[in-house]
This record gives sequence, structure tokens and C-alpha cells, in this order.
Amino acid sequence: MAQLDFFSDYMEGAAPEILERLVATNFEKTPGYGTDVYCASAASKIRAVCGAPDAEVFFLAGGTQTNKTVISALLKPWEGVIAAHTGHISVHEAGAIENGGHKVFELPEHLGKLDPEEVEKAFAAYEADGNRDHMPAPALVYISHPTETGTLYTKAELERLAAVVRRRGAKLYLDGARLGYALGSGQTDVTLADIARTCDAFYIGGTKVGALFGEAVVFPKPGTAPHFFTFMKQQGALTAKGRILGLQFDTLFTDGLYERLGRHADRLADKIRAALEEKGYEVVFGSTTNQIFIRLDNARWEELSRRIGLSFWEKPDAEHTVARIATSWATREEDVDLLIAEL
Amino acid sequence: MAQLDFFSDYMEGAAPEILERLVATNFEKTPGYGTDVYCASAASKIRAVCGAPDAEVFFLAGGTQTNKTVISALLKPWEGVIAAHTGHISVHEAGAIENGGHKVFELPEHLGKLDPEEVEKAFAAYEADGNRDHMPAPALVYISHPTETGTLYTKAELERLAAVVRRRGAKLYLDGARLGYALGSGQTDVTLADIARTCDAFYIGGTKVGALFGEAVVFPKPGTAPHFFTFMKQQGALTAKGRILGLQFDTLFTDGLYERLGRHADRLADKIRAALEEKGYEVVFGSTTNQIFIRLDNARWEELSRRIGLSFWEKPDAEHTVARIATSWATREEDVDLLIAEL
Amino acid sequence: MAQLDFFSDYMEGAAPEILERLVATNFEKTPGYGTDVYCASAASKIRAVCGAPDAEVFFLAGGTQTNKTVISALLKPWEGVIAAHTGHISVHEAGAIENGGHKVFELPEHLGKLDPEEVEKAFAAYEADGNRDHMPAPALVYISHPTETGTLYTKAELERLAAVVRRRGAKLYLDGARLGYALGSGQTDVTLADIARTCDAFYIGGTKVGALFGEAVVFPKPGTAPHFFTFMKQQGALTAKGRILGLQFDTLFTDGLYERLGRHADRLADKIRAALEEKGYEVVFGSTTNQIFIRLDNARWEELSRRIGLSFWEKPDAEHTVARIATSWATREEDVDLLIAEL
Amino acid sequence: MAQLDFFSDYMEGAAPEILERLVATNFEKTPGYGTDVYCASAASKIRAVCGAPDAEVFFLAGGTQTNKTVISALLKPWEGVIAAHTGHISVHEAGAIENGGHKVFELPEHLGKLDPEEVEKAFAAYEADGNRDHMPAPALVYISHPTETGTLYTKAELERLAAVVRRRGAKLYLDGARLGYALGSGQTDVTLADIARTCDAFYIGGTKVGALFGEAVVFPKPGTAPHFFTFMKQQGALTAKGRILGLQFDTLFTDGLYERLGRHADRLADKIRAALEEKGYEVVFGSTTNQIFIRLDNARWEELSRRIGLSFWEKPDAEHTVARIATSWATREEDVDLLIAEL
Repeated sequence: MAQLDFFSDYMEGAAPEILERLVATNFEKTPGYGTDVYCASAASKIRAVCGAPDAEVFFLAGGTQTNKTVISALLKPWEGVIAAHTGHISVHEAGAIENGGHKVFELPEHLGKLDPEEVEKAFAAYEADGNRDHMPAPALVYISHPTETGTLYTKAELERLAAVVRRRGAKLYLDGARLGYALGSGQTDVTLADIARTCDAFYIGGTKVGALFGEAVVFPKPGTAPHFFTFMKQQGALTAKGRILGLQFDTLFTDGLYERLGRHADRLADKIRAALEEKGYEVVFGSTTNQIFIRLDNARWEELSRRIGLSFWEKPDAEHTVARIATSWATREEDVDLLIAEL
Repeated sequence: MAQLDFFSDYMEGAAPEILERLVATNFEKTPGYGTDVYCASAASKIRAVCGAPDAEVFFLAGGTQTNKTVISALLKPWEGVIAAHTGHISVHEAGAIENGGHKVFELPEHLGKLDPEEVEKAFAAYEADGNRDHMPAPALVYISHPTETGTLYTKAELERLAAVVRRRGAKLYLDGARLGYALGSGQTDVTLADIARTCDAFYIGGTKVGALFGEAVVFPKPGTAPHFFTFMKQQGALTAKGRILGLQFDTLFTDGLYERLGRHADRLADKIRAALEEKGYEVVFGSTTNQIFIRLDNARWEELSRRIGLSFWEKPDAEHTVARIATSWATREEDVDLLIAEL
Repeated sequence: MAQLDFFSDYMEGAAPEILERLVATNFEKTPGYGTDVYCASAASKIRAVCGAPDAEVFFLAGGTQTNKTVISALLKPWEGVIAAHTGHISVHEAGAIENGGHKVFELPEHLGKLDPEEVEKAFAAYEADGNRDHMPAPALVYISHPTETGTLYTKAELERLAAVVRRRGAKLYLDGARLGYALGSGQTDVTLADIARTCDAFYIGGTKVGALFGEAVVFPKPGTAPHFFTFMKQQGALTAKGRILGLQFDTLFTDGLYERLGRHADRLADKIRAALEEKGYEVVFGSTTNQIFIRLDNARWEELSRRIGLSFWEKPDAEHTVARIATSWATREEDVDLLIAEL
Repeated sequence: MAQLDFFSDYMEGAAPEILERLVATNFEKTPGYGTDVYCASAASKIRAVCGAPDAEVFFLAGGTQTNKTVISALLKPWEGVIAAHTGHISVHEAGAIENGGHKVFELPEHLGKLDPEEVEKAFAAYEADGNRDHMPAPALVYISHPTETGTLYTKAELERLAAVVRRRGAKLYLDGARLGYALGSGQTDVTLADIARTCDAFYIGGTKVGALFGEAVVFPKPGTAPHFFTFMKQQGALTAKGRILGLQFDTLFTDGLYERLGRHADRLADKIRAALEEKGYEVVFGSTTNQIFIRLDNARWEELSRRIGLSFWEKPDAEHTVARIATSWATREEDVDLLIAEL
């Protein structure tokens, strides 16, 4: 790996506050499976910041596990989920949703986002189809926020999408693997309370935003996913020593740490973006969060990637490469300055 | 929870050596999904202690996830797994194996163990059945070591079982959720190398033996479970920040820590067992590891469980209760002495 | 195959009335997927005879398909089904229920039947279990009537079972693969209306009682299995040319043909049973329907099975064999007389 | 339904030759599950006409069931199937493939067909993807012949596709729900032997080509789908009274009946197509088999569909409707003449 590593946002351990508390509480004895005081406290803080006093909160170990478990819990066997064709569940989860028995209906992406009108049309087309009883039923809409390419839904977009979904009797699920980087962005008007108000389920990502591992699933309305505890167990998604997850989220949601970690990464990403633009790089995909995408000719990509740790993203054509630079909660400002100097 | 807590072996955090290394390495940058140096080092140490230089080693987050993923990977859709009717997969995993599509064939338990002759008979009955093409095929045998009630297979038993299984073209899988307490027992002749030699797959449990969380799956013969990495991903069992798992197992397998942690718990359990027997308690189930089971009349159970943290296990009849006392890698000798005084 | 074939009840084609109507209607044009007049008429007649005017009726192709589709439709992912350990779904459906994701909880059989008290105890044990959230939930009870060994529930037993099941919020499902032979028995007080009143779902078997193939699923209360049409399609259980099934059941439920076919087979079975007892054979299992089971010493089995078409059933011990003789709707009285002469 | 019904090709019963044999053999006794002489004879004739003396042949009840069972049997859990986005499995099987755990990778269609170069690119893109271990693996290509819109692959196209698939270590599966109408077309150079030579699995459709119901699966190379019998049983796809299927296919493959039935429907479709073109209708989609698609303005569609039984297919834009006219093995020439007069 190169000296200057900007490969991803899951390269370091955890926020020091988390490690300190793990050490401090190490020999406390707690009961298992998320029934401990730390999980209770974390859930309580999450309910408060979401403005959802009755929300059900569960802690799982990782993102694909969370998507698979939540989506399967919300769908009946003959139902499927709508997602952008670049959605994480569409591409990079090894068919986890299909393994759970459900079709992913792929719609076009617009800067990584679903267009509410196209979602509306997909529902309408299904309902108008004379053969719909021979077809899987779209019953859930999956979005990621930030998207896989770092863009954000506006509050208005989220509300429009929620209205479309609600009108069809379907549900809205938000994958917040990088949610901290959404909340910390200078260019968002979406709060956790907005998400809790518009979505039927979402998760607050820990693995990529300061935790060793872990994601917090929130069902704002209780009863959304009956017997979810047992279903988690069945899916292999129930952590025995749940307090390890609870304690991490309790820490992340104390004194605004979660958002602060996100803001740190976003600010450094903004700094890199500004420098890139100044230097004449073509910044693409419209990300306003911790991921930065640049379009390079292949020679430049070859040269840069030897010196700097950035990720190959895709080849839009034979001559060009899109590369990703990712900051994280752990990125040091001096490394950003070094990076900018090297670009 | 009572003052003196002996409820289970997953009540505390992790061995201090692990926390120290987590802190020390926290800001190192590593690639994801188990491709880091810590996973590589841990796998290498595990291969060495198993005497299985070509073994494939994978790190997963928890026990049910591991059982579900490994068993599904080893079975074809029409195949099932033989287990004791007290086996963890038979009872306490919320139907995870069936959710993966496979039948669990339950056989009687003998102090928690399968009897090789009964396994042989089950295979023979299947093969002799004229309707066997209408039946799921037994193709894997699941054992736990220690069993759910703390007993251990002898090397001779393990070898007999392996011979039975091999002869039928089936596979043997060992659930080592508490494997450290097997290895650390004063009354075992089974080593990790014996397990690697007799089993097609097994896992070394971290969650209950000194890790924050995590289990290490070992396939002694490479190629046993093709594309297991992708299958883990699909099952939601691939940890993004894999180094957290690798580092824990690397620590556990440095300087014999894993076995030492097990031995500590077993020694304290032996001390409690000796005291119990001296005091006239009826110690049952034959455990020689960190779990102790006692048969009490109900009044005694009521009285004891108010003062001491022990678990309800079962009611063998209307008048009696079996209770469990569990030590762990984290149990303090002074608490054991206090417990003995209270009994 | 021997001259005198009493191997099973699916050896011949279909009741001549069915073939005649297939020929007579062959060039009529009907829409597909069970939306034709024959399906409508058959459903209407079945509703009438069941005294269930709002019942939903669906036609499927075979028994395992029906069991798998109905049971999966009635269970949530974390739920399982209670069945006798000799139940068809427990043994001879190649793990179809588990393939659908559900555990089969096996209870002891009593002449092939479940005992309501034992079912009650199984529910109670689950509900009393402190770990029940880690266990699959029993939510459905599967019975067969006649059972796999030809015995019948009495009306009182059926009502007791239904009361137990209802009290636990669970459902009762009756596999009627051979239902005609139950209805036609001289020793039953159970009518189709009793079944419709006590069960949440059941199927009326055609394949073994006069049809070329086909089973009619009845949900006495509408809404029991929402979107069952689409679920059938997904399970590969929706017949394109549904009228072939509808027409068969319409014929079977015209002028009491279905029950008449059953009665014919039962009467001949009674005649054989009487002869067997007179000749000193040991008739076992208590069947009062079209299947007859006899316990023979092995030499006698060898000798008889060379001359007569009877099925091997099982070896209760090293020296004996249980054999099955099956009559059917198509059995000729003269063959029965020949059989009796040969016994 | 209108007087002149051209809605679909599964509106009538079966070829009279089949009904005659069903009647003639009705009281013969045969063993179950496809082990009878009729299945053996049918399989033998199919092997002969396919030029595949070692082929394994199985008889199933319907198309979706067949697709689901074969595709699941050929894929490992982490593998998926490539299909045209208009493929029957992509749209109209209610998510059956996903219910079996597998992703359908949808590629563009070209007159209903897959383009070998695009398939090649899909495989190449997967293999070149650095994240492919996080993705489901394309391992099977599904085509229909005729396609859902009646077009046919040429022998050269089939061979090119097979070469692409073979080179990637994948498999090729052909859905022949309407295969008779392919074989009977005047514009095809593809024989059953060509299909058996190029495909790893295919099915010969009976339901839409002269049978009451039933599809014959062919695996030209034995061992392609191990334990397929048990897997069929588990999937609810094994017919107890298998001889009903065997006898139908035995009849269809006696004296070239199957191809003759197809040719009849195709000739009448050609006659209709010629008339339509003469009358100035816009015939679309390029079908050369028994389905005919015409593009109408909406008013014309409204008017026509009141008088004639044709199917709504789709609305390509707000002003137009595509309608389908289907002939079948059972269509009478005088009805075709009446239809032409009415158009």
C-alpha cells in the first residue's frame, strides 16, 4: 500500500473514545444478546436524536448482514425491492438479497440516486400490468444516503420519495453505511429526525464511521418488523456479546461524536476537492461527502496510483479511469496536505 | 444481577492483551475483508498449531452465523446434517440451518455427545431405505466440543466418529464455540491437531474464550468449501474491517494465550466442582470443562438463585431444577472462593 | 411386477368419468391459470360440500408441492411446523419443508396420529422456555387424514386438536392426499364440513383418489393465505392449463363420485382385512381405510412377495417384515378375491 | 371470450392421440415417480431424436416449475443466471428464480434474443472486476427458443452463444416451452440434435404444444445435475403418477407428432401474417412461429378486441397498442379463414 492511503473509510480501527470505554468497562459483567445497559442507553440516545421516542433499535455487525436481514424481514416471499442499479444491494453484496429469496428491481441512477418519478412509474407499471399476479410485487424501496458515489438526497427529494412509496402501500429503507458523512456534510438539509420521519427503516453505519464494527438499525414505528430479534438470530445477525455494539453506539451518540466524526472527514474531502478543481482535475459524480471521484486519462491514473493510495473505480471508456479518494473520521489533516501537494 | 455472577462465559469484554493491541494498532491502515496482515498472521499461527499447513482459515463474527454459513457451504440442497437433539443447531439457533434449506437429523445425546454406532446406524438406515431418493440425504455430522453441557469427546471417540463419517462419504464438522475450554481441560487427550486431522471443518470460538467477538473457521484440506469468501459475503458473514478479527486471533494464538485462558476457567470450575461435591451437591451431566451443572430441589434453587448468579438450565421433574454455574477466562479466583463460601 | 398388484393407490389412470369429460371438452377454449369455468365450478361444489361458502379453493398438481406451498404460505420465516415423526413431510418429501426455510418439529406418533395433549405440551414448553426467542416458533400443526398408515382422527380428536392449536394462536393443516379413503370409511364420523370447520387449511387429494393428478387446497376462511396465487406461481405450483385440474375436481365432486371412489376401495380393503384375520395373519397399525399392514416373519414375506404385489414397509425387528397391501378406487373385486385365495 | 379466440396456445386440451392412449391404458398398473415403461419409452425416443444416447430425461408438470428446478440444480448458491430482460424468468415467473436464491442478470434483448457479444462482455466484465468476489457469479445463460415474442435463434447464433458460454466455464440452458413451434417453423435451421449438442440443459414443452400438461427436461450429458430426482422431489416437481407424463411424451415423439403439431400452428400463423401484411397491418417483433404481434392505434385495438380474441401485449407509446394473435396445434383452418375475413 502506498504511503498516502486514501483507499477507503474502513482502514483504521475505532474512535479513541470507543477504545477507551472498551478498556474502562472490560471487566464489567453484562447479560448477552443486546439486553445490556449499553445497548439500552445507545438505543435511548438514538431515539432521542431521531425524535422517534417509540423507535425500535437493534445492533448488527455489518452492512450486508444488515441489508439482508432488514430487507428479508420487511418483505413477504413474493415481494421484491426497488434499488438503483448502482445500489450496493444490486451489485456488491454477492446476491445476498436474492439468497434471501427476493428480486431486486433495478432502476436507473441519477448521480447515484433514485428519481421519485421513475419510482412512481415503476409502481404504476406494476399495478397496471394485467399479468402482475405472475410477477414479484415491488413492496420496498432501497436507497443509500450517502449513495455509493457520495451524493445526498435533499429533504425535499426524500419527502417526495416517501410520499410516492407511502401512496403505494410500500416501505422505504435507507442504507446509512456512511450516514455520518451525510450528516456531517456542509451541503445537506437532512437530519436524522428527517430520516426517521420519512423512512420505515434505516441503519446508522458504524463500521465506516468510527466504530470497530457495527450498524444500528432503526424502525421508527414499533411493530414494523415483528419478531426481529428471533429473525436476527436465525440470520446469524445477533451478536452474543451485544454490549460491544451497544457501547460503541452509546459512545458515538454521546456529545455528538458521530456527526463530528462525519464532519471531520467531509471537511477534509472538501479541501481535497477544492485543491483538485484548482489543479484542473475533473471531479465527477457530484459527491459532497467523504468520497471524491476523479476522471483521469489512463497514463495519469497509472502514474498517480503508483504514488498515492487511491482506488480504481471504473473505466468509463478505453482511454480513461475514474479513481476514488476517500477520507474518513481518522484521516489526518497533515496527510491531506501531503496528498494535495502530491496531486 | 446478583453480586456473584456465574451466568455465562460471555459476560466480560476481552483478554487485556487483545485490548492493548487494538489500542496500539488503532491508527494503522489495513485493507478490508480479511486481506490484511493480522488475518494472515493469525491464519498462519492457527495452521501451525493445527499441524495443517494447507488449511484455509476464515474469520467470522459469531457462532450461529458460523454454523449456518459453514453447514450451508458443505451441503447440497437435498442434503441434511446429523446432530444430537441437544445440539446447538437443533435447538437454539432459531432454525438457522433450516432457513438455509437443510434438515437437521436429530439423534439421541449421551452426555451431550453423539454415539458413533448410532451415527453409523443412521447412515446405514438411510442407505438401506428403498425410499431414500425421496428423502434428504445425511451428508454431514455436527458435533460440539465441548458439548452444550461441557463434556468432551476423547481422541478415540473422535477417531471412531470420523471413521464412520468418512466411510459414508460424508463430512464431520466440529462446533468449537468453547474450544478453549476443551483444550484447557485437565481431562482431555484431544489437541487442535487431532481435530484438524479428524474433522473436515471446525471453528475455534473467540466470543466465549477471550475475544470481544469472532470465530475462526478452519478447513484443514484446501478446496473443501469452494468460493467460501463470496459465500460468506452473501450470507452477511464477511467483516469489512476484518483486521479486528485477525488481530484478536493473532493475539489469542501468540504464546499459547488461547489455551491458557481456557485452562484458567477449567481450573476454577474444577475447584468449584470439588467444593460442590464435598458439600453434597449433586453435580450432573459429567462436564469436565468450564460449565458446572447441579441438580437442586426447587426450594434450594429458589434460595440459591436469589443470592448467586447462576442460570436456570431445565426442570428434569416437577420437584427439581438443574442450574448452571459457568466460569470463564475472566473469572477471578477470589470470586470463586466467595462463591464456594456461599454455596 | 406380480400378477396381483396391490402396491399402491396411484398405479392406474383416472376414473372413467374424468377421461370421458376430458375427451368431451377437449377442443373447448378456456383461459389459463385456473380462471376457467371448470375451476370455478369445481370450487363452488367443494365450497358447498364443505359448508364453507367463503372458502378459497386452489388446484395444484401434486402432494409434496401442495404441502410445501401451503406450509410456506402459512408460516413466517422464523416459524416451524409440528408433525408426527412419521408424517409425510417429516420423512418422505426430501426436505421440501426445510428447503422452504422451516423446521419440522417431530412429535411421537400414536397409530400415525398426533396426540392433542402432546401437542399442547409442545406449545407450552416453547412458551415457557426462557430461550424461546432463540428458537423457531411452532405456529402450525400438520396432520394427515388418513395418516400414512391408514388411521383416522375421530371428530372428537380433531376438535380437541383444533382447540389446542387455536388457543395458542397457531394454525391447523390437514394433508388429505388420501382424503377420499377417509370419507369413504365405514368407521369415521368426520365429514368434509367437519374438516373445514376445524382446520385452517387442508387439501383434498386427487392423485391417489381417481384423478390423473391434482390436489384441491381449501382455505375455509378467506384471507388465510394472502396472494396465494402469486405464491403458487413463484413456487412453480400454478398450472397453466388449469382447466385440466378444475375439470377433474368438478367431476369428482359431481354426484358424490369422490366419496364413492373412496368407499369402493375401503370396502375391498375391509374384505381383505377380514380374510387376513380369518387366516391368522397379524394385521397391524389399526388402519380402517384402503391401506392394510401385516406383520410377517421374513420367510413368509419372501415367499408372499414373489407371488403377490405388496410393498415392503419396514423391518420392526431382525426376524419380521411389515408389508402393505393397498386397494384403490380402481381395484377390481375379482382381483381381491384372487388375492384372498392366494394369501 | 370472443367467438374467434386466438388468445394463447394453452386454451385447448390435448392432441387426440394422447387422449386416446390415456383411455386405452387407463387401467394398466404402473409404478410411480417416472419409473414406468411409458417414461422409459418416451425418454428413449427423445434421446434418439436428440442424437444424445446418454442423455438424462425427466418429466415435470409445468414451465415455471421446470425453470426453477433446473436452474437451481445447475447453480451453486453464489451463482446467478444471465437472461434477456424480456426473458420469462426475468419477468413472469413471480420471482421464482430469486426464491430459489439466485440473481437473474438481465441483458438487453434483440428481437427477444440474447446477443452473444453482449453475453461475452458480461462475462468479461465480471471476470475483470476487482470486486468480483463480492458479486454473484454469472454461471448459466438462459435463452428461450422460440423467444417470448416468437423469434428463433439460428444454428450459427446458438453455436456462437454456446462457444462463449463454454469458454467461460458456464452452462447454457434453453427454455423450450414452445419448442414444437420452433421445430415446425419453415424458417429455422435448428434441430433437436443441434440443441442437444449446444446446450447443457433444455426442456421440450408439452403444455403449449399438444399435451394436457408437462415438460421434458433433457440433460444431454449424464451427470450434469446429480441427484436431480431427489431435488425434483424436494422442489415439489416430481409427479407421483409419472406415467401420465411419460405417456404423453411417448405419444408426442411417436411418428413425429410433436413437430407436426408445431408445423400446423406455424403454417396457420404464416397464413395470418401474410394476410395481415396484405391488409396493411404493421406486424412487429419478427416472429416466425405461432405468435403474431401487430402494432395498432388504440382505437383500432379497441374495436378489434371487441370482435376478435387477441391479447393485449403492451403499449409502446400513448397512442398505440401491440396485440398478440396466437395459433396452436389445435387451431382450425376455418377459424383462421374467419379471422382473416374479420381483420
